[in-house]
Amino acid sequence: MSDLYAMRWKAVFDEDDFPERADSGRLSFVEESGNAYLNARQTSDVAVEQQKVIAADAVIFQFPLWWYSMPAVMKGWFDRVWAYGLAYGYKNAGNKYRYGEGAFKGKRAMLSVVVGGPEADYAPRGINGPLDELLFPITHGSLFFLDLTCFPPTPCMAVPHASPSKTCWLAKAAWRLRVERLFEDAPIPFRAQNGGDYPERHILSSQVAVGQTGLLAHIADIESVRQAAHHPFRGWPFS
Amino acid sequence: MSDLYAMRWKAVFDEDDFPERADSGRLSFVEESGNAYLNARQTSDVAVEQQKVIAADAVIFQFPLWWYSMPAVMKGWFDRVWAYGLAYGYKNAGNKYRYGEGAFKGKRAMLSVVVGGPEADYAPRGINGPLDELLFPITHGSLFFLDLTCFPPTPCMAVPHASPSKTCWLAKAAWRLRVERLFEDAPIPFRAQNGGDYPERHILSSQVAVGQTGLLAHIADIESVRQAAHHPFRGWPFS
Repeated sequence: MSDLYAMRWKAVFDEDDFPERADSGRLSFVEESGNAYLNARQTSDVAVEQQKVIAADAVIFQFPLWWYSMPAVMKGWFDRVWAYGLAYGYKNAGNKYRYGEGAFKGKRAMLSVVVGGPEADYAPRGINGPLDELLFPITHGSLFFLDLTCFPPTPCMAVPHASPSKTCWLAKAAWRLRVERLFEDAPIPFRAQNGGDYPERHILSSQVAVGQTGLLAHIADIESVRQAAHHPFRGWPFS
Repeated sequence: MSDLYAMRWKAVFDEDDFPERADSGRLSFVEESGNAYLNARQTSDVAVEQQKVIAADAVIFQFPLWWYSMPAVMKGWFDRVWAYGLAYGYKNAGNKYRYGEGAFKGKRAMLSVVVGGPEADYAPRGINGPLDELLFPITHGSLFFLDLTCFPPTPCMAVPHASPSKTCWLAKAAWRLRVERLFEDAPIPFRAQNGGDYPERHILSSQVAVGQTGLLAHIADIESVRQAAHHPFRGWPFS
């Protein structure tokens, strides 16, 4: 477990991340990240977090939704731990291995998100936008990108209005069931970059997601995800 | 100007943000943020940033796209500066005033985003997803939410492959033009929460965006935005 607040995690990715620079003049994060990772010159806090993920079968990211994204401290975990050579630029091959090929093949990931607003605000036509699209930069862009198999998020909605007895009990029961099924449930079926759906320049083939544009075109079977999202133990509150 | 790195901006929103707590037992960020803002008990760094925005006619957010979002240091600016009573819970009225009504009415905002990947990756059917949807949690959820009139982002794409002479010159020219037109160009036509499009429970009326779901249903005229995005001076590189 990494309790980022308790660890006083350094959120800001900056020159202090590179005590031994490849180029002491100009600070290129990509170049220095690759240099530090590949030559084992990372700061120890970053290396320890990478080792935790490497040792894990599944990773759960628990956070409150702040401004429709992660809190800064967790964003800083991704900024710093997802190094060049490991998370992007895998095998030092540019964008060749990503979205379904990467260092974390076979590992599972799930977001456990605590949301202040009511479920209606995040409905398919709710004013905030649907949660699965708001979280796409994380699920698709920050997890599946590295070949972490990503499961539909398990949100707790309307948390400030939760009753400690009933709704918290239900939330715990729903969460327990989700975790128990983490190695059985179907993941979000994101399309693999090198699986044939992107034959040229990483643009969808005209044969798939016909007529669709936007984030959800990159999910092979959005209906299965939406149905899973309506499973009675999927989220709460449920009546 | 607020250069967050140079200022060594405190990114992590934590108990140190509330030197005088309303409740010294349980830390509720919503409650303490409201208490600190409404009783002028915020830390001075946060109060100074709020005053800068209040004094501004337009605010430009300049950042590199890291993991399809802002770097942690800027996320921490939003987490800390966008206080309850000012940015959300405006007039202490819950969700009544947001998305088109709020403390920052009449102010303008624009994102200036530097992107490593090539433009094709962010095309309407490109593998990363379109930039306007990836940035929706910021443009819609963190700016228009507060009634900042938000303009289409001006990205610089494929930056690691830019030639200092030609592409940087073009980027500067494009940027200059965008800034000159900041008080003339058309904003992203996000739908106002209290303008009639959300008659009940903040869900879109069946009369608007018929058959649409998802993020872009909250933009009244997506075609105008997409056309603006293809303006020759909108982004670069352009041939």
